[in-house]
Amino acid sequence: MKQAIIIRNDLKMGRGKIAAQASHASLSAYEKTPLATKNKWKIEGQKKIVLKTNTEKELIDLLKTAQMKNIKCAMIKDAGHTQVEPGTITALGIGPDEDRKIDEIVGNLKLL
Amino acid sequence: MKQAIIIRNDLKMGRGKIAAQASHASLSAYEKTPLATKNKWKIEGQKKIVLKTNTEKELIDLLKTAQMKNIKCAMIKDAGHTQVEPGTITALGIGPDEDRKIDEIVGNLKLL
Repeated sequence: MKQAIIIRNDLKMGRGKIAAQASHASLSAYEKTPLATKNKWKIEGQKKIVLKTNTEKELIDLLKTAQMKNIKCAMIKDAGHTQVEPGTITALGIGPDEDRKIDEIVGNLKLL
Repeated sequence: MKQAIIIRNDLKMGRGKIAAQASHASLSAYEKTPLATKNKWKIEGQKKIVLKTNTEKELIDLLKTAQMKNIKCAMIKDAGHTQVEPGTITALGIGPDEDRKIDEIVGNLKLL
């Protein structure tokens, strides 16, 4: 089991900003996930991988793919107080779900 | 309402590693928090601040202070597969709780 957190690398956010957006994405996707899946993931050590994309379009395509596979997701839009314009999509949380299912969606992305 | 996420800056972790540790700390502290506090924080937009310390001791002192004030916390130890030694304390999540209470604990820390 694992959760994928994907960050927009093209926005050139600082590492503190990235950490906050990743935490939003992780928590929000987790909250949508069915209880049995949540618990299985936690027992296994709540593995998370943090990946990157370079476009908003790529992030939206990943969301659509995950949704088609019935995996819970959370797309994060920033309030834009700092560093990015208000409403900017900054990150996507996918899962947790089975490793195989997550890999099918994000397997060709690079680690942040 | 806000949650504080504090990262060990002296470990020189990469930004993907930091994002993963921050997400662990955020989710784990959130899970320990009473439901009414969780919900109030989410309604207000689940504000998170990401801060830094330069020593393990400082992180442990922050944990003790928060616990004395009865704020839920999660200290994160890394499994150490990459970048740091197994069992290294990497991050601390505090809250969410009221802004004033969180500021009393972390108010003199710098943003990551």
